[in-house]
Amino acid sequence: MEQDTTLSLVLFSGTDDKLGAAAILATGAAAMGRPVNVFLQYWALDAFRRDRVTADHGVATEAGAAGAAMVKKDQTGERHWSQLLRQAKDIGDVKIHACALSMELFGIGKDDLDPIVDDIEGVAAFMSDATAGPIAFI
Amino acid sequence: MEQDTTLSLVLFSGTDDKLGAAAILATGAAAMGRPVNVFLQYWALDAFRRDRVTADHGVATEAGAAGAAMVKKDQTGERHWSQLLRQAKDIGDVKIHACALSMELFGIGKDDLDPIVDDIEGVAAFMSDATAGPIAFI
Amino acid sequence: MEQDTTLSLVLFSGTDDKLGAAAILATGAAAMGRPVNVFLQYWALDAFRRDRVTADHGVATEAGAAGAAMVKKDQTGERHWSQLLRQAKDIGDVKIHACALSMELFGIGKDDLDPIVDDIEGVAAFMSDATAGPIAFI
Repeated sequence: MEQDTTLSLVLFSGTDDKLGAAAILATGAAAMGRPVNVFLQYWALDAFRRDRVTADHGVATEAGAAGAAMVKKDQTGERHWSQLLRQAKDIGDVKIHACALSMELFGIGKDDLDPIVDDIEGVAAFMSDATAGPIAFI
Repeated sequence: MEQDTTLSLVLFSGTDDKLGAAAILATGAAAMGRPVNVFLQYWALDAFRRDRVTADHGVATEAGAAGAAMVKKDQTGERHWSQLLRQAKDIGDVKIHACALSMELFGIGKDDLDPIVDDIEGVAAFMSDATAGPIAFI
Repeated sequence: MEQDTTLSLVLFSGTDDKLGAAAILATGAAAMGRPVNVFLQYWALDAFRRDRVTADHGVATEAGAAGAAMVKKDQTGERHWSQLLRQAKDIGDVKIHACALSMELFGIGKDDLDPIVDDIEGVAAFMSDATAGPIAFI
C-alpha cells in the first residue's frame, strides 16, 4: 500500500450526526485497508469524554426535530458512532489522538477520556504524520 | 494528468450557503480539468431530492437574517448551486454519488433523487476511488 | 520537501472556534515547514474585514453559553486566531487569498480586508495551486 493513502480526520464538531458521518468514513477507509488517523479538537474532544460518549450530543441545527429524532433512532447499540469507531479499530489501523491544545482548553487529562482515545498529541506531530494523504475537517 | 488530482467532496450539510461553496469548488476544479467525485450524506442528500433541489434550504445559523437574504438573492437561476453543478458536469468529469447508508437512513430510493445524482454507492467504494487526492468534507 | 505537502485550507465559517481550529492547524503545518494556502469564502471572508477581525464572531451553536465563554476567554491577545495566523506567516510560507466570488457577493474590495489577506484569487487559480496536497474545508 502507498503511504499516502492514510486518511486523516480532524474532528471538530461533537454532534451525533457529524460524528456518525466521520465514523462511517473511518469504517469505509479501514475496510479498504487504509490507515486512519483521527485528531480530536474542541467539541468533538468534549464528546469523547469517558462519561459522555453515549450521551445525546444533539445534531446540526439544520436537521430540525424530525432529523434529530431520525439520527437518535438510528444510532442505537452497534450503530452508535463510538461502536462503529471501535469496529474500525478492530478491523484496521485506526488511531485516535486528542489535540493537546484542546485538552488544555477544557482543562482535562487523559483519564477523563474514553479508552477509545489512544493518546494526546500536539498539532505539529499530527501534521507531521499527515504529510501526503487527504485531511478531512469534520 | 496525474491520477491524484481528483477532488473528492463529501457533502454533509444541506444549507444553500455550504452547497453554494461546494458547487463553486467543483466548478473551479472541473474548469482546471480535474475529475471531481461527490459523495452525498445526511442533510446534503436530503437537499438533492427530486422535489426539493430548488427549495429554500436555509443557511448556516451564523449567517443571520442579512446573510440569509444575501445568499437567497445570489442563488437565483443560473447561479443556483444545482445549476453550477450541472455546468460543472457539462464541462468536466464530475460524478455525484448518494451514500447507500444515508439512503437507508432516509428510507428513499434512486427515483426520489434529482437526475443530477449518478448513482448510489457504498462508503468503501467511495474510499477506494479516493485513494490519493484531497477529500474535503463540507 | 515534496510539493504535495502543501496544506490547503478553505475557510467558510466565520465563528471564532472554527477560525481558532484553522489557525492551530495552519500554525502546526507551518512549524513543520509545510506551505499553507488559505482561501476565504462566505462568512470566513466576512470575519477578515479590516474593522471586524478582533470583534466577537460567536461560536458554533453546539458550543452553548459555557463553550462560548471558554473560547472567548481563550482567544485573547496573542492567542487570538488572527494573531496565530500572523505568527504562522512569520515562521512559514503561509498565503491567505480572498475568494473573488465571495468578494463580489459581499460587494467589498481589497481595502476592506485586513492586511493579513495577501490578495484576491479566483477559485480556478486556487484549485490549480492545490493539485496534490490535502484540502480541508473548515
